Amino acid sequence: MKKPVFKKILIANRGEIALRVIRTCKEMGIKTVAVYSTADKESLHVRFADEAVCIGPPSSAQSYLSIPTLIAAAEITNADAIHPGYGFLSENAEFSRVCQENGIKFIGASPEMINQMGDKASAKATMIAAGVPCIPGSVGLLDSVEQGKKVAAKIKYPVILKATAGGGGRGMRIINSEEEFEKAWNDARTEAKAAFGNDGVYLEKFVEEPRHIEIQVCGDQFGHVCHLSERDCSIQRRHQKLVEEAPSPFMTDDLRERMGAAAIAGASAIGYEGVGTIEFLVDKNRDFYFMEMNTRIQVEHPVTEEVINYDLIKEQIKVAAGIPITGNNYGPKMHAMECRINAEDPANGFRPSPGKITVLHIPGGHGVRVDTHVYAGYQIPPNYDSMIAKLITVAQTREECIVKMKRALSEFVVEGVKTTIPFHLRLMDNAQFKAGDFTTKFLETSFDFSEL
Amino acid sequence: MKKPVFKKILIANRGEIALRVIRTCKEMGIKTVAVYSTADKESLHVRFADEAVCIGPPSSAQSYLSIPTLIAAAEITNADAIHPGYGFLSENAEFSRVCQENGIKFIGASPEMINQMGDKASAKATMIAAGVPCIPGSVGLLDSVEQGKKVAAKIKYPVILKATAGGGGRGMRIINSEEEFEKAWNDARTEAKAAFGNDGVYLEKFVEEPRHIEIQVCGDQFGHVCHLSERDCSIQRRHQKLVEEAPSPFMTDDLRERMGAAAIAGASAIGYEGVGTIEFLVDKNRDFYFMEMNTRIQVEHPVTEEVINYDLIKEQIKVAAGIPITGNNYGPKMHAMECRINAEDPANGFRPSPGKITVLHIPGGHGVRVDTHVYAGYQIPPNYDSMIAKLITVAQTREECIVKMKRALSEFVVEGVKTTIPFHLRLMDNAQFKAGDFTTKFLETSFDFSEL
Repeated sequence: MKKPVFKKILIANRGEIALRVIRTCKEMGIKTVAVYSTADKESLHVRFADEAVCIGPPSSAQSYLSIPTLIAAAEITNADAIHPGYGFLSENAEFSRVCQENGIKFIGASPEMINQMGDKASAKATMIAAGVPCIPGSVGLLDSVEQGKKVAAKIKYPVILKATAGGGGRGMRIINSEEEFEKAWNDARTEAKAAFGNDGVYLEKFVEEPRHIEIQVCGDQFGHVCHLSERDCSIQRRHQKLVEEAPSPFMTDDLRERMGAAAIAGASAIGYEGVGTIEFLVDKNRDFYFMEMNTRIQVEHPVTEEVINYDLIKEQIKVAAGIPITGNNYGPKMHAMECRINAEDPANGFRPSPGKITVLHIPGGHGVRVDTHVYAGYQIPPNYDSMIAKLITVAQTREECIVKMKRALSEFVVEGVKTTIPFHLRLMDNAQFKAGDFTTKFLETSFDFSEL
Repeated sequence: MKKPVFKKILIANRGEIALRVIRTCKEMGIKTVAVYSTADKESLHVRFADEAVCIGPPSSAQSYLSIPTLIAAAEITNADAIHPGYGFLSENAEFSRVCQENGIKFIGASPEMINQMGDKASAKATMIAAGVPCIPGSVGLLDSVEQGKKVAAKIKYPVILKATAGGGGRGMRIINSEEEFEKAWNDARTEAKAAFGNDGVYLEKFVEEPRHIEIQVCGDQFGHVCHLSERDCSIQRRHQKLVEEAPSPFMTDDLRERMGAAAIAGASAIGYEGVGTIEFLVDKNRDFYFMEMNTRIQVEHPVTEEVINYDLIKEQIKVAAGIPITGNNYGPKMHAMECRINAEDPANGFRPSPGKITVLHIPGGHGVRVDTHVYAGYQIPPNYDSMIAKLITVAQTREECIVKMKRALSEFVVEGVKTTIPFHLRLMDNAQFKAGDFTTKFLETSFDFSEL
């Protein structure tokens, strides 16, 4: 075997993603260090890593988010790199910087890249400069109804007025034509004043029938950036993704080419290195708008791995080690879908359901992949997120992929806790979902959560 | 969804293959009936089938091999087809015939095809007539040393003398040249006489450095037969396959074309319908010889599924329903390998290790497939074969496939019983295995089984 690109990687994370990173490290001949809070001492990532270091009590702030403790763990174990996974410190510029200062390679974005993309306003400015379409709107707050009408005429109706102090839809109005403007302006400001004591409002283009479609990109240290096609993540509940798939059922070759080029332009603008994701909203006319960039691996990355047949964690590690990429873009060869299996009760507002898994059977067979850190007897700690497994299916067509998912879900047995499996089973039978005809509003407006 | 090709299939089998067939049926919208002996009432195939029928006590003869009971179960449940899996009655001409007589489609070969291939002598005669190379040798027993020398000269040295009543290598002699013939003849006959009271001997071409390479074929009801490339099953212990892979590391494009054409000729000669396998011995000069044909699905079929990306059980069911195949041959696009995980103790001569699985963690991630019917808490009955799982990995190259297998094996946790996992882990580190440089004698002659 060739000399590994790193000698030892510390994985500053837990759960399935820690295990996921360990798997690729093993395949690359790289030693691994797991870190764990006392709540996670029975976790498989602890068992499967070459070494494991306890980093504190269950509270994330005192364990998985504690930069000094993580750096100390890396130094004690002589790790030459840290993989942050997703969540926790994966998009923390300070952590990236401290790693750099301590001569430990952070397998992720540089502090500068994270800062440029971490703040919404500067990310948007960078993207506009790079020619990436962003949701047009007023620059800051509106001074008068006349100014509002002018902006609206420029960005074209429908538009949406939003309260700067807003939330939960209050102080928000969709406006379809200039005739509706003045009344909406008055109503929104009155409502905002009453709700938040602040009647400041701004205007944005209203994205009709929005779909969440993201482009996976990869950049190396030599300025090459490529895209690895899209993932559709429109199946969301309260902005939490539940199902992701590639290709998007809404995608066309032309749209993929335009979105891919925009994503590459955006990533190139910040000299992006590593794998990252540019999230877009796509409207019914297939116009798309930049939402945000995630400068890390995503939960839903396996969907892309299955359709382009490549290990994204491996790519991430190789790029961090200074290995150049080919620079070619990769389109989907298959159809893949991921269902997030969470320990939540879908019949009760997806309330978390921590506890002990008493019986477990993981589905298998052709075209079925499961990424999980749980086992029969595993106690799900209440301290962290509730995802217990990712179930991924891959097939030649979307129809086959859904049928396979339904089959795999039906043989996924988890007893002892409630899970999102009944929700996913229902979704796979939903005619609108099967037709690929859904937006980010689908679950909210068109899905029956009763009797789950 | 389209109308399913069968309404309901009874699976006349147990364990992972029963589950495997249920999976495909579910994906095809076909209802399933499981059958089980009292030893298997807690099995997952019982849980996952739409219906389940108890067919008797643990003894196979009184349950999985009882034709009248199986037919009764199919009639009671209104099954319109029976899938026999592998082993048990899968190559039983009588069962195939009784199914036919009862108007139940047997998803396998017709009684005639099974009979033609079941008996070694008639299979060989059929293959010779079809132009498929068979191991040349004497026709029946030899009368004299002179006759033996004549046959040897014709089939060319090295040759092997075998006692007709023989076994365990007794009465067997490898002869490299005519000078050695007479002594070997006398020794073999003396030894055979002493051991078996019968000094009859016959002569065969000695296959040097034999590899077991089999060709997967598929035929439909319209006379089309295609091949789906090969599997290398040379890693055997006492004729039990332990590891299978595709493509064979010994394969060349030319050899695949020749073996594929021979397999198609052989299958066509008996008008073969369904999926089947023609097993060959391939010698060091890449000459190949027919061994036998299996007129059923094989244990190792997932290896082929992964490299051609197609569900073979689905193909089997479609062909049985009268759907024509394209007739195209399929070559491997990837490299896949299967390790048979048996509840056996490799440190003690692979002695069966039935018992209760107390802890189980199934490996997962990109390029890993597991077909299993077991779970934590499952009691492995002592009545049937000891295979508890098939672990399959798939990657772009053989080297990556082995690395992935090693990783997957290392995270496959089975506690409560001994398994073949330590053996497979050792094998994946073996230089000769990694180089692809092995024959069917490899485990016997070149592998260190100590300290497993």
